[in-house]
Amino acid sequence: MQFASDNAGPAHPSVMDALLRANDSYALGYGNDTETETAVAAVREVFEAPEAEVFFVTTGTAANSIALSCLAQPWQTVFCSEMAHIHLDECGAPEFFTGGSKLTLVDAPGGCIDPGTLERAMATTGASGVHGVQPGPISLTQATECGTVYGLDHLRALCDVAHSHGQAVHMDGARIANALVQLGCSAADMSWRAGVDAVSFGATKNGCLGAEAVVIFDPDRARDFEFRRKRGGHLLSKHRYLAAQMMAYLQDDLWLRLAAQANEAAANLERALAQVPEFELAHPREANMLFAHAPRWLHRDLIAAGAVYAIWEGDLQGDDPDEPLLARLVCDWNASPENTAQFMALVRNVTSKRAEVRV
Amino acid sequence: MQFASDNAGPAHPSVMDALLRANDSYALGYGNDTETETAVAAVREVFEAPEAEVFFVTTGTAANSIALSCLAQPWQTVFCSEMAHIHLDECGAPEFFTGGSKLTLVDAPGGCIDPGTLERAMATTGASGVHGVQPGPISLTQATECGTVYGLDHLRALCDVAHSHGQAVHMDGARIANALVQLGCSAADMSWRAGVDAVSFGATKNGCLGAEAVVIFDPDRARDFEFRRKRGGHLLSKHRYLAAQMMAYLQDDLWLRLAAQANEAAANLERALAQVPEFELAHPREANMLFAHAPRWLHRDLIAAGAVYAIWEGDLQGDDPDEPLLARLVCDWNASPENTAQFMALVRNVTSKRAEVRV
Amino acid sequence: MQFASDNAGPAHPSVMDALLRANDSYALGYGNDTETETAVAAVREVFEAPEAEVFFVTTGTAANSIALSCLAQPWQTVFCSEMAHIHLDECGAPEFFTGGSKLTLVDAPGGCIDPGTLERAMATTGASGVHGVQPGPISLTQATECGTVYGLDHLRALCDVAHSHGQAVHMDGARIANALVQLGCSAADMSWRAGVDAVSFGATKNGCLGAEAVVIFDPDRARDFEFRRKRGGHLLSKHRYLAAQMMAYLQDDLWLRLAAQANEAAANLERALAQVPEFELAHPREANMLFAHAPRWLHRDLIAAGAVYAIWEGDLQGDDPDEPLLARLVCDWNASPENTAQFMALVRNVTSKRAEVRV
Amino acid sequence: MQFASDNAGPAHPSVMDALLRANDSYALGYGNDTETETAVAAVREVFEAPEAEVFFVTTGTAANSIALSCLAQPWQTVFCSEMAHIHLDECGAPEFFTGGSKLTLVDAPGGCIDPGTLERAMATTGASGVHGVQPGPISLTQATECGTVYGLDHLRALCDVAHSHGQAVHMDGARIANALVQLGCSAADMSWRAGVDAVSFGATKNGCLGAEAVVIFDPDRARDFEFRRKRGGHLLSKHRYLAAQMMAYLQDDLWLRLAAQANEAAANLERALAQVPEFELAHPREANMLFAHAPRWLHRDLIAAGAVYAIWEGDLQGDDPDEPLLARLVCDWNASPENTAQFMALVRNVTSKRAEVRV
Repeated sequence: MQFASDNAGPAHPSVMDALLRANDSYALGYGNDTETETAVAAVREVFEAPEAEVFFVTTGTAANSIALSCLAQPWQTVFCSEMAHIHLDECGAPEFFTGGSKLTLVDAPGGCIDPGTLERAMATTGASGVHGVQPGPISLTQATECGTVYGLDHLRALCDVAHSHGQAVHMDGARIANALVQLGCSAADMSWRAGVDAVSFGATKNGCLGAEAVVIFDPDRARDFEFRRKRGGHLLSKHRYLAAQMMAYLQDDLWLRLAAQANEAAANLERALAQVPEFELAHPREANMLFAHAPRWLHRDLIAAGAVYAIWEGDLQGDDPDEPLLARLVCDWNASPENTAQFMALVRNVTSKRAEVRV
Repeated sequence: MQFASDNAGPAHPSVMDALLRANDSYALGYGNDTETETAVAAVREVFEAPEAEVFFVTTGTAANSIALSCLAQPWQTVFCSEMAHIHLDECGAPEFFTGGSKLTLVDAPGGCIDPGTLERAMATTGASGVHGVQPGPISLTQATECGTVYGLDHLRALCDVAHSHGQAVHMDGARIANALVQLGCSAADMSWRAGVDAVSFGATKNGCLGAEAVVIFDPDRARDFEFRRKRGGHLLSKHRYLAAQMMAYLQDDLWLRLAAQANEAAANLERALAQVPEFELAHPREANMLFAHAPRWLHRDLIAAGAVYAIWEGDLQGDDPDEPLLARLVCDWNASPENTAQFMALVRNVTSKRAEVRV
Repeated sequence: MQFASDNAGPAHPSVMDALLRANDSYALGYGNDTETETAVAAVREVFEAPEAEVFFVTTGTAANSIALSCLAQPWQTVFCSEMAHIHLDECGAPEFFTGGSKLTLVDAPGGCIDPGTLERAMATTGASGVHGVQPGPISLTQATECGTVYGLDHLRALCDVAHSHGQAVHMDGARIANALVQLGCSAADMSWRAGVDAVSFGATKNGCLGAEAVVIFDPDRARDFEFRRKRGGHLLSKHRYLAAQMMAYLQDDLWLRLAAQANEAAANLERALAQVPEFELAHPREANMLFAHAPRWLHRDLIAAGAVYAIWEGDLQGDDPDEPLLARLVCDWNASPENTAQFMALVRNVTSKRAEVRV
Repeated sequence: MQFASDNAGPAHPSVMDALLRANDSYALGYGNDTETETAVAAVREVFEAPEAEVFFVTTGTAANSIALSCLAQPWQTVFCSEMAHIHLDECGAPEFFTGGSKLTLVDAPGGCIDPGTLERAMATTGASGVHGVQPGPISLTQATECGTVYGLDHLRALCDVAHSHGQAVHMDGARIANALVQLGCSAADMSWRAGVDAVSFGATKNGCLGAEAVVIFDPDRARDFEFRRKRGGHLLSKHRYLAAQMMAYLQDDLWLRLAAQANEAAANLERALAQVPEFELAHPREANMLFAHAPRWLHRDLIAAGAVYAIWEGDLQGDDPDEPLLARLVCDWNASPENTAQFMALVRNVTSKRAEVRV
């Protein structure tokens, strides 16, 4: 009953095999190897972007922060959702890598920034001239931290707002594959064709051990990246092991198949939970995560019985047993029907016992 | 004929096996897993330091820079050798992570800082009060960038100098295993018992894919580390794969056996090269690296014939065929006698041909 | 008709005289002069804090940012009002000096942070451990950016919240004299006795050319200040001219008399504007600033006729003549009754003309 | 007997008068005043550079550091003399403002960087690609920290080296007026016509209270300056007082006359000291500073008798009375013939007494 996070699951066997294959000989370090060359080409092909600059790092925080440091000046502010991973979950890494940029938090119902809200935020920033920070890039997360997915029109509208202010667009794609599968479009459609300038292309959560690509479509914007990466301690010496993961991940659309598995598992879970009156879904499922409210007593009993997931808002230790707490349940590529079935059996068991007690 | 770097070779099969074993189930992310707990305990045991704080990262640059940022204030200067990796090969990472500390370069013949020189450097730093930067920690590399190894008395003398100025000592141990094998002492003897306060314990070069531990003996000095690591993008989500590497590496003294193999290969190479008049060794071999001068024509012929190693000083493309250029030859754990034999055969072949031509 | 800002007016003649007197001889630079010693003692006496560390700088932004950098770690967040000068008007200086701390904006009706709101903000920050930034100091402005003044109980309550989270309290006292005069209490009561740990003691707006003191009550917290100041380029070489300003400013309570004049001028203006139906005061006057809404046509006519003040919210160039725009009117120490009388005559003239036209 | 520093002396009466005149009315803050406009125009005229961007700050450290931060990327290194003020006397301010650039210290006999040495330093920097920091701007001091002055050909040669590497040239002109007077050329000749890209135009040491201008000849390079200045806390609110100093300073060539007075005083002192066998001049006097060796006993007696100057190298408290210590003697604009005469009388008195004792 594993729903804690898509980074709690294993890496895909094909990725492990690729590591073993990469381990059979000598290769120059720091990316000067053939595996890296091939992996860069594979990412470019996925994005139909032969000119794009592609860099590999091991964490999403590194990908996001170094990418943003190429797009934002220290005296600018990055516009992002108030729920953005870059704001809540990176311990100030964007501020560190940019040399002290601000983050301007934009109201984002369901995790999605509204273009009108963004326009108002950008228009009123920097109006006092040198006294305040200036508008900088926007960063949006696809799929969002709420498990929702921006449609292509929505993406285009946000990119238009950013570009009309002369600013670039960064996409935090920690779960980009899950979003692509949901939209059924191409990576190019969901990125540069919609106006996105740089993507953190996450692979760790969806089947790798630790591998992320930063894709910057305009090489001019990428000029500093390799210095910032090295200086950030993120240029791996035995770089081929990063590249090998990425190659296996992209080979034969493995990444899309894995994301489809994860999304489907989440859809099944959503359907099942919709039958349980104690659960109330907070957002429609659009990727591989569910957010649902349930009373404290239910969470306590489920977790005590071995279900693993995160209480997102509220305190499990509180007093009122009936207070609804928001939970996050994540299905990774490896989520099995049995995992869900076991969980739902537990849910039914716990809720029916409670009903008996109350009667 | 692979002597380019100890990060050009493969990882050890036991390390790969450990990765596969770690991949069989779900585990909490970000170090909250049992593999991490076990690996931390293993590092503490190696150092006989049950109270030490231990953190894993993927690169030596990250290890060094985050460690130094815990020891140096932005208005201090870090004392290091003029050949230090932190100065020459990290693109300013220490400056970045410390918030702009300086590095004071200390003359270091053979890669080893002399205690008297260090004392003079520290004593004259900060004497003008608030106008100049203040003395900060020292960072020494063991084994050094010249392939030499500090003796224990030498280490103690340097630590005494630093401590007498109220400053801490960082050891860049990218090749710490090679140094330990050479000295035949314990890790504790070569670190905290000699006065070292923090160690970058390198494992990548000696058989891992990408795994380094930072060991800080006084927990008070380590308080900020986890925030600095996260903020630097260096806290891996699927942290168990880092831990698994380290566990396999330390298991049954694998790490010391691998270092002994590398050192022995280098010793063999040294003995063989000593027979070749064209080669002149720059430093005595004390770890797994050789630095040797040879004329340009010889380097050209060897490299053209497939020998892989680095020209450390001088330009292979220069005019004078007889000008001596400094080469670095590194033997990794996987260096085979055949590798050396093949190289030496080539050396003999090339030099004898040249002799014929000249005659 | 000057109401633009209290930094638009002249310095007080006594301050100018002090500059001239300080100019008559040689003195060591960088604060090693007797004027500085005397001025530091004078500030300590004002605060009844003989142990406090006192530093002079030329701008409020420098005072605030360097003070905060002594109180906040880079991975912490500074809690402040959403209207705080440190957030809106310093172009990211706090982020720069702290090495990339965040600012957490707390809702602050009338410019005053509510202790309950602060408690909720501090309690929910950092709860996710290393993933998010950690709670840091709070910074409150006295008098606030809205021209209101925290009462002593209110201050104590805020300080208690901060201290209960182990964090320090910074007071941005750009208009501290105006607040003191309003409360009628001592500087000690309004600072360390209430729990404030560091004060930016502003003198520039209230009669100096450019002089601010940072007062840190616990010397342990001030250890880094002089390095941070020097490194920020804020240690003046001819330091005596800073000290001379501060000495003249504090001599014979000049500073309190000047603040009283400014406050009284604002009170008179408030009384007069209260008679004008077109003006609606946004906050009660408690210091030397008024915020008032008036229709766009009225602002346009007044400004066209030579009144100098800032439109704080809204755009003077908009279409609807009747839309209310928020203006800020500031009275400095030099504000004369004639200045107000002239302005009020203009207001009456403009509004009565408009009334005629409408009739 | 004042020779401590040119920042130990008073400001010129004309500068004080200008402050008083600027104090008679209201003016918009932050440089939006007419005095600032006029002062900017005056600086442009001095440099015959109508397109140059000109910014005022209060300290030389701020001028140098903000200027360098506009010219250097964080992963670059600034080439400067090993005696450079930016290295020795600014507590790491350039590192702070640039976001962690390095400083590469170039051997500089007599304070002057040799073009050949610079070329070698720049050519060998960054050769290892992303591993090392990259070449950045050069910063040279005119007049140098040794009191010497670069000739125009020398300047041009240094600028050519920097430009040939695609890098800019910064001139630390803390004593630029003294150098100009010595060379007898125009400010344009000594700056942009020789290839200098940015100048810290010092006025504090030569008669102001605290006023420096940064002049950047290519406006493209100056785009970020105002944000960096504000963010550094260096945009003065009552900016007119900075501008007023600069206007008075430049009016009717006051600045050049003051520098000529200072240089002449130093020349007189040099001539007088040349007659004293105990003094040995370290560098030829070319500006307003002398560096001279004299035995410890002599320094002790002179300083005990009230002479004020700095021991530049060595420790006055040492044992050997005859050990030569290097002293720095600075003449400011206000240095009077009486000051020198009194000092020389003391020197004669002390040395003749010593001679008697020895006999």
